Amino acid sequence: MSTMLTGACIIGQSGGPTAVINASAYGVIRTALDLECITKVYGAANGIKGVLDDKLYDMGLEDAEELRLLMNTPSSELGSCRYKMSDPEKDSTDYDRILEIFKKYDVRYFFYNGGNDSMDTCDKISRFMEKSGYECRVIGVPKTIDNDLYGTDHCPGYGSAAKYIATTCAEVYKDAHVYDVGMIAVIEIMGRHAGWLAGSSALASLCGCGPDLIYLPETDFDMDRFISAAEGIYRERGNCIVAVSEGIHYADGSFVSEAKTSATDGFGHAQLGGLAALLAAAVKERTGAKVRGIELSLLQRCAAHLASKADMDEAFLAGKTAVLSAVSGETGKMVAFERAYEQGRYACLTKLIPLDSVANLEKKIPAQWITPDGANVTQAFIDYALPLIQGEPERITENSLPRYARLKKILAK
Amino acid sequence: MSTMLTGACIIGQSGGPTAVINASAYGVIRTALDLECITKVYGAANGIKGVLDDKLYDMGLEDAEELRLLMNTPSSELGSCRYKMSDPEKDSTDYDRILEIFKKYDVRYFFYNGGNDSMDTCDKISRFMEKSGYECRVIGVPKTIDNDLYGTDHCPGYGSAAKYIATTCAEVYKDAHVYDVGMIAVIEIMGRHAGWLAGSSALASLCGCGPDLIYLPETDFDMDRFISAAEGIYRERGNCIVAVSEGIHYADGSFVSEAKTSATDGFGHAQLGGLAALLAAAVKERTGAKVRGIELSLLQRCAAHLASKADMDEAFLAGKTAVLSAVSGETGKMVAFERAYEQGRYACLTKLIPLDSVANLEKKIPAQWITPDGANVTQAFIDYALPLIQGEPERITENSLPRYARLKKILAK
Repeated sequence: MSTMLTGACIIGQSGGPTAVINASAYGVIRTALDLECITKVYGAANGIKGVLDDKLYDMGLEDAEELRLLMNTPSSELGSCRYKMSDPEKDSTDYDRILEIFKKYDVRYFFYNGGNDSMDTCDKISRFMEKSGYECRVIGVPKTIDNDLYGTDHCPGYGSAAKYIATTCAEVYKDAHVYDVGMIAVIEIMGRHAGWLAGSSALASLCGCGPDLIYLPETDFDMDRFISAAEGIYRERGNCIVAVSEGIHYADGSFVSEAKTSATDGFGHAQLGGLAALLAAAVKERTGAKVRGIELSLLQRCAAHLASKADMDEAFLAGKTAVLSAVSGETGKMVAFERAYEQGRYACLTKLIPLDSVANLEKKIPAQWITPDGANVTQAFIDYALPLIQGEPERITENSLPRYARLKKILAK
Repeated sequence: MSTMLTGACIIGQSGGPTAVINASAYGVIRTALDLECITKVYGAANGIKGVLDDKLYDMGLEDAEELRLLMNTPSSELGSCRYKMSDPEKDSTDYDRILEIFKKYDVRYFFYNGGNDSMDTCDKISRFMEKSGYECRVIGVPKTIDNDLYGTDHCPGYGSAAKYIATTCAEVYKDAHVYDVGMIAVIEIMGRHAGWLAGSSALASLCGCGPDLIYLPETDFDMDRFISAAEGIYRERGNCIVAVSEGIHYADGSFVSEAKTSATDGFGHAQLGGLAALLAAAVKERTGAKVRGIELSLLQRCAAHLASKADMDEAFLAGKTAVLSAVSGETGKMVAFERAYEQGRYACLTKLIPLDSVANLEKKIPAQWITPDGANVTQAFIDYALPLIQGEPERITENSLPRYARLKKILAK
């Protein structure tokens, strides 16, 4: 199909961390190290910034066992960045520099692991190299707990975050139901524009501990309706657990987290702080109930100790597929997932989609997967998300604490 | 040593939940069900309130396998309460009622599982029964994530919370170190008067991911020194992770969480919200760094998915020991732990201590286990806490979500 291309490769990580982004990096690194046509495997320090700064780690100098522990190590071990590349038509400085580095190290394969911004970076680099006549195959590896990438059934990183969220919500449910005097707990979950993460809290209903109310950015939020719903459930059942996306907004588009409520502290100041605290205060004012605002914060994106095995294996598969596809001649594509049911069992297949079909877009939860009252998800959502959280990876520990990869990170000369 | 006493027993749970309080309940229930001299095993709904309200579950009617799942189920499955008993000398109404219920069900053994307030309740009931000439053996089973009970080396519940805190701090450390631009993260941990929980964050240093600064209620907090220390570390290393007890206070005894800082939001209001948010805002004002305030909230006390096997086994042992001690004639005591090192390996032995020696007291971290600058714990603390977090219990799941006990909770007639 294409000529054999021999040269070095670079893997870079970008955007926010996940529990399994290093599993994708390992998928790339391990596969590339084992291929003859790939002469060197470099890890870029802090994503594309490592390329621009000529900071590349020589992954071939790492101990194989430590590399394997990347499967078990959360966050981006090579370092990440949030560097937005300019349009090469307007300013090609960065691209010229990247080309210079690629030539210096004879880089013929470039793999970039990230979300939609990173796929945009990937796309621009791919086009620039093509235009420059420098043969280099560029493949994107998807990553985001937000699960909002177009063209793929789901994203590596989502399943593990969803599993953490569902398990944590179940535990909070258990905790909140312990006293004879009940509680209203509001759990704030990441997701600025799409509710995949907050929706995953509904999986806890499978162990009888699901939230009573779930609010997503896909619908408009109404404070009065929320308070009435929470109060009704609290009066009836003695407790109410609420899961909310950080990105919920009013009908006018303004974020609830940025709005003022009538709730005040004892000094007459508006109650500030996170969204969970704000909603908890608002509902407390109306009901007088004991309330708790809980923000899952960074915990939900780095909880490798509760990773989904399906997610971890698929993250590795995405990295491996990227390398094998590039070697077979593909470029300018992102690895994507397709869901199949083989004899009724979930299976994850890979495919390639053009980078520009995914860059800078956001996939949201289909409207029909949200209940008509806008306060929960349907069984279809649960059927979608459940296979993605399956399986417990072996927990690799030392002193019963996580044993993460310890890389030497030796800079290439 | 004493006459055989035949009759029913009651187990009640009290105070805040832990990951393993139900393992202690199971230790009591399983052991009691298997003894001939114990004719019935009742679980009190919501602790002592269930006795007062004549709401007792007949544990003998439960399925044995579901009962066993109590080992795996966080929070207080029988329900808890925070009911403070009056002094029986002043008002014996509650005690008369308890005696009435004990007689009604022929209760000759009473086991109460909780912290120091609960041991006070236990002590009062024990004395009242003795004074009334009603033979009933009363044994307390310790429980608290706070680890602040006197007379015992440590408390069931602490080890699992400590393991959750250490693991979570390691994951946050990984997350906070991912970008080329650093972050100061402040992690707020439970513990109003004792710093055992916040101190356990130091265990993360064993996997290279410990907090840079740890502040405990055992020392006086100084905002300026904190900000200077955090800034120094941030400037030097690019990042700074801070763990704080919710109970840190200034030299005058006032809680930092209740004080105002000079930090304001954009509208000139004082920054409110939790302690983590307050400290993060204060340090941001001085350094301009990206900051994150993270409150572990309820998550740290109900995270059964990350329980310590040592803690879980010891929680069961405490319950079992309570029953065997009572049957052998003991009363008015609490089960306590003694640490031994057998051939260099940690072992946990049980003993009995008088209830009134533990009620209403709080054990703090020894001063010599805190570093002279008051901003960390010493190796002696780590040596103390590390054995308590060891071991991974089998994770019992269904659909890769926790499978908790589903009790029938059939009320006794």
